[in-house]
Amino acid sequence: MKIDLIIKNAYVFQTFRQCFEKKDIAILGDKFYYIAPKIRYDAVQILDCTDKYIIPGLIDIHMHIESSMTFPIEFSKTVLPHGTTTVVADAHEMANVFGIAGMEAFMEQDTALDIFYAIPSSVPSTSEEMETSGGIIEEKDVLQLISNDKILCLGEVMNYKALIAEQSTKIKDMIQICKNHNKNFKIEGHCPKLSHEDTAKFIYAGVDSDHTQQTANSLMEKIDLGMFVELQKKSLSKEVVEVIEKHQLYECISLVTDDTMPDDLLKGQLNRVMKQAIALGMPIEKAIYIATHTPARRMELSDRGVIAPGKKADFIILDQLDTLSITEIYKNGVKYEEAYQSKQEVTYGQLFPTYFYHSVQCKHAIEQDFEIKTEKDCNRVLANVIQIAEFGTFTKKIERELQVKNQKVLWKEAGLSLITIFERYGKTNQISHGFVENAFIKEGAVATTWSHDSHNLFVIGNSIKDMVKVQNHIVDIQGGYSFSVGGQIKASANLRVGGIISDSPVKEVGEQIEKVRNTIEQLGYKNNNVIMSIATLSLLVSPELKMSDKGLFDVKTQTFESLLKYID
Amino acid sequence: MKIDLIIKNAYVFQTFRQCFEKKDIAILGDKFYYIAPKIRYDAVQILDCTDKYIIPGLIDIHMHIESSMTFPIEFSKTVLPHGTTTVVADAHEMANVFGIAGMEAFMEQDTALDIFYAIPSSVPSTSEEMETSGGIIEEKDVLQLISNDKILCLGEVMNYKALIAEQSTKIKDMIQICKNHNKNFKIEGHCPKLSHEDTAKFIYAGVDSDHTQQTANSLMEKIDLGMFVELQKKSLSKEVVEVIEKHQLYECISLVTDDTMPDDLLKGQLNRVMKQAIALGMPIEKAIYIATHTPARRMELSDRGVIAPGKKADFIILDQLDTLSITEIYKNGVKYEEAYQSKQEVTYGQLFPTYFYHSVQCKHAIEQDFEIKTEKDCNRVLANVIQIAEFGTFTKKIERELQVKNQKVLWKEAGLSLITIFERYGKTNQISHGFVENAFIKEGAVATTWSHDSHNLFVIGNSIKDMVKVQNHIVDIQGGYSFSVGGQIKASANLRVGGIISDSPVKEVGEQIEKVRNTIEQLGYKNNNVIMSIATLSLLVSPELKMSDKGLFDVKTQTFESLLKYID
Repeated sequence: MKIDLIIKNAYVFQTFRQCFEKKDIAILGDKFYYIAPKIRYDAVQILDCTDKYIIPGLIDIHMHIESSMTFPIEFSKTVLPHGTTTVVADAHEMANVFGIAGMEAFMEQDTALDIFYAIPSSVPSTSEEMETSGGIIEEKDVLQLISNDKILCLGEVMNYKALIAEQSTKIKDMIQICKNHNKNFKIEGHCPKLSHEDTAKFIYAGVDSDHTQQTANSLMEKIDLGMFVELQKKSLSKEVVEVIEKHQLYECISLVTDDTMPDDLLKGQLNRVMKQAIALGMPIEKAIYIATHTPARRMELSDRGVIAPGKKADFIILDQLDTLSITEIYKNGVKYEEAYQSKQEVTYGQLFPTYFYHSVQCKHAIEQDFEIKTEKDCNRVLANVIQIAEFGTFTKKIERELQVKNQKVLWKEAGLSLITIFERYGKTNQISHGFVENAFIKEGAVATTWSHDSHNLFVIGNSIKDMVKVQNHIVDIQGGYSFSVGGQIKASANLRVGGIISDSPVKEVGEQIEKVRNTIEQLGYKNNNVIMSIATLSLLVSPELKMSDKGLFDVKTQTFESLLKYID
Repeated sequence: MKIDLIIKNAYVFQTFRQCFEKKDIAILGDKFYYIAPKIRYDAVQILDCTDKYIIPGLIDIHMHIESSMTFPIEFSKTVLPHGTTTVVADAHEMANVFGIAGMEAFMEQDTALDIFYAIPSSVPSTSEEMETSGGIIEEKDVLQLISNDKILCLGEVMNYKALIAEQSTKIKDMIQICKNHNKNFKIEGHCPKLSHEDTAKFIYAGVDSDHTQQTANSLMEKIDLGMFVELQKKSLSKEVVEVIEKHQLYECISLVTDDTMPDDLLKGQLNRVMKQAIALGMPIEKAIYIATHTPARRMELSDRGVIAPGKKADFIILDQLDTLSITEIYKNGVKYEEAYQSKQEVTYGQLFPTYFYHSVQCKHAIEQDFEIKTEKDCNRVLANVIQIAEFGTFTKKIERELQVKNQKVLWKEAGLSLITIFERYGKTNQISHGFVENAFIKEGAVATTWSHDSHNLFVIGNSIKDMVKVQNHIVDIQGGYSFSVGGQIKASANLRVGGIISDSPVKEVGEQIEKVRNTIEQLGYKNNNVIMSIATLSLLVSPELKMSDKGLFDVKTQTFESLLKYID
């Protein structure tokens, strides 16, 4: 028996004591074989790592590849150099557009990065009565997916009311199917606004993790009640990091990315979340622990996340610990570049079935499609308006009095923008309207099919000419993000696979999206992530007032709201 | 919905912060429902627990019911009042006597205590060439057992050489069957003498726990290499507890009992190991943590071990924390007495198939069976002798020169005792002999069928008259532990089920064993557990010189040794 690789003199991360010790590492095949202060074997290769640090490959257990507007092979190629070696992806956007076929198209891609999958629990995010999606994931799909080796969990259960209902509901049935398959099957949750007894009920119903935004208080409460909490960028505040350190909550948390935009992905992935945690005061060793060991344990990936005999030899060589400066990544015992080369080369533009490239089944809009008229003569109306926040994706439900002239509602004059959603799967051809406050100051329009979770064709703007222009453009390019000012397309990203991802290199779509982002910001739209802010105006499970192809939706009451009320 | 039980004002153990907080607990059905500072529900029952402490039920993940010489229903009844609510039992003694039928007879007993099982990996402990056992567990048995809901792991893999062999071996095949069934299937190990690279190889081969005796160094090394270490009484020393506290190794360890003699069982079970850890300086909260949460996590019993919504309502009410003084035990949300009453009443003596009561298939011995004669005339011989230690079950291999007269070896004159093992399954009727130093000082003999792991009829003594007496007595009562002095049975325990357990109340067998223990000690046998010391003289996987029905066995070289060498 000849050892394949010996790494000498490195400071090796000791997971179970969360410290570094100078040791040698022997690797046999794709696994770690032995770790000790001095190892003397005959080895195919010996690598001196004096003054370098070695940590396990990073494991991101809650994320969506579609948020990066790309596909698994390209995603793999992009994130491996940043140290991510395993992810658990919830491909619920692909499922929203194509159903189980969308998921399967992702799952069959052969990647150097280990990509496991969640079964999307909420496709559509609400129900067919509330929004029209391209695909639906039903109980029979859960049964079909659950035996697949790449499936690790049921993804982000969010429908609290259906979950705790006395009667049978789809989500309760899905959980039961999972638990019947394996009593330890992980049920992942999404519960931003729950607390106290509601959280207890959510857990009692079988959902024991959450990855949404936390405060120090929500984190403490959820952990005490037995939840595993996955912390993404927006959850990491100084007070959250302090409470974790004070109570040593590291066993109950991990770091995750959730959504990474394509332009951001080029800069890093889970390593950036680690850096953020460290900058906020988390000890580096703890940040490594919750980006490697605890996520692996949560997902019962007992073959990885630790540098120990028998574990997958996925690791990162750092030349500086404090900056997490990466010099080399190994996947399955070989340099990631080699691991990548052994996988198929990508033929851009031919990766998916033909019909995936023709998913925007709606008409070209005309100006009349964007006219908001009252049903009767009046001078003014009271409108339910979506107020956008400058941080995050939650909105407020507000009322605004609007002037009416010749039955035409003068929303633009009131400083509002208009949202119009076109059902785009050729099912109902419905068109719905809403008003938005705090969107655009200057004139222009944006259209996109990357609109969570149903991904209908979504147009927002305050210039009807531009709204027509961008809508038509998106239909022409069969999906993407498009921006128009003065009747001219100024920026656009082509997301022609299902209208939600690009099959070009991520660098290309990243640059396109960065340009769209900048142009939108120039119109005066203020949010920490304008792309996501716009895309989630149609996300019916995120508070407070949102809209679907079927109309304006009050998330709290789970009912549709009228756009206008007649007051005289 | 009406809550079944509310416990008010208790100091409730917060598993994830390892502290107590004053809270109320609501229980719905057999599960915890909600835990919070003030709970106000309509409840069937309200229990005020002011000044009391509540901790989860204790979970013992490595133990053998047969060590308590009893059967599951009786074991359950005995340990529940001590706070143990879940165990993982390795019924490998039953398997050694009856094969898979022995395990099944245990597994089908309906108990209030949750008893899960390990698949015995090493039955017989070595191989049919080295010892004759009643039953054998083979690959086909693993396949049969593994789908049983009560099966949680492969039990104590110990054959290091077979495990790391290049060629196919039974133990490698068994592990493969388990991993094919479920890649996270737990493979439990037994590796008392391994260190360094050998430990790494053991882990690389798939075995990542150990429950044998530890030192501070062995514990550190095993944990750094990725093992989960189950600490039993003999591993708990001041230095071990110190190293655990210093490096905060609590995530990687649990407390277990392994073997509890019947007389000890009446005094407690896992709670006694906790008390020992606490007495050695372990913080009480940490001792609770590693007797509840970490063992549950190791065995993927994700439904218990924590007081949190959705978890099994198994808990202990303590009126004093520092002494772990128990006032009440709840199992599945009800007082254990009620839980017990709902189970069938025991009909002693009729619990097992008839043939289980007739398992000692060997002849009544006569004096000639105990004569050790040389094959040729000589004056002295060199004998390989088993030297017993005063602590633990390891022995030393030593040589002693013995006088010979008329071809009769004068071992008694040299202060030795004689062991004679009778194959008792009616397979070979073989008889083997060995000498022991440091056994009896006064004259007498002990016989037992409770002799690990093959449980042949084992006789040890220095008076042939007594050896005949006890051997005959054990055949007559069909198994047990028997003690004779001056040709008279002075103490005896009847273990008539397979010769290894009693189907009488445990109190009865406990008292019998206590008497046997005391009488053996009166003969001058010095060991911290004389019953176990004698019973493991035939355990071929425990260093250094042991013996089976086939002869004297060198554990290190894995070869048989001659009893005598001729030196002139």
